[in-house]
Amino acid sequence: MKPSIQHIAIAVREIEKALLAYAGILGASVSEMTDVPDQKIRICFIQLANARVELISPLPGNESLSRFLDKRGDGLHHICLGVADLAAELARLKQQGARLMDEQPRVGATGHKIAFVHPDSTGGVLIELEEIE
Amino acid sequence: MKPSIQHIAIAVREIEKALLAYAGILGASVSEMTDVPDQKIRICFIQLANARVELISPLPGNESLSRFLDKRGDGLHHICLGVADLAAELARLKQQGARLMDEQPRVGATGHKIAFVHPDSTGGVLIELEEIE
Repeated sequence: MKPSIQHIAIAVREIEKALLAYAGILGASVSEMTDVPDQKIRICFIQLANARVELISPLPGNESLSRFLDKRGDGLHHICLGVADLAAELARLKQQGARLMDEQPRVGATGHKIAFVHPDSTGGVLIELEEIE
Repeated sequence: MKPSIQHIAIAVREIEKALLAYAGILGASVSEMTDVPDQKIRICFIQLANARVELISPLPGNESLSRFLDKRGDGLHHICLGVADLAAELARLKQQGARLMDEQPRVGATGHKIAFVHPDSTGGVLIELEEIE
């Protein structure tokens, strides 16, 4: 089964301002904002026809995302691909020599199993894999 | 109708190398490479279940894309959203005060009507709109 695009994540400094702008641009409704303390992010989603746009902003202490924003400003941060069997996909990628940020699936903000692949292995693009049914 | 994600474009310096890497990572097949002389880009697509990943690299004289790569390196470049009526969508965005790079639809690399919205209006994300049936 081919992977599917689940969401495209956009890093923003001011999430309240950004979500109004994106809802207007995209002509779509926006989810409630949610804090994900273990990832130190505040997120909200904009549902499109076949995938979601995820806005993410750093909570205090999130150095990695703050550094990204300092360096690049607001913009595209990562893409999330849905796969049927995440553990098998990670094993396949590891065998190919990919650099995995999560060697094993962990539970993400929306309750699904997720894992990140390092941008070094994917031509500069941070990829999140999510197990979908 | 909500817009749908048509493709996610990733800018790369070495497209031959990148397409092999992405096909491996994504576990999906890659289209032929195509030159689009009027946009001064070489492109290829990787078909996923619900959208495509587009790899783009600059042809000689493409200063804008070369500058992007000099500044940021390989990485996410733009997202393309499918809409039912592009002219109406551009009128709606213009009325909202969005900065349009194309005031009118033009014909893109795949033969569809397209237009770009400037990242200034979309929190740093370059958005392409494509008219789909």
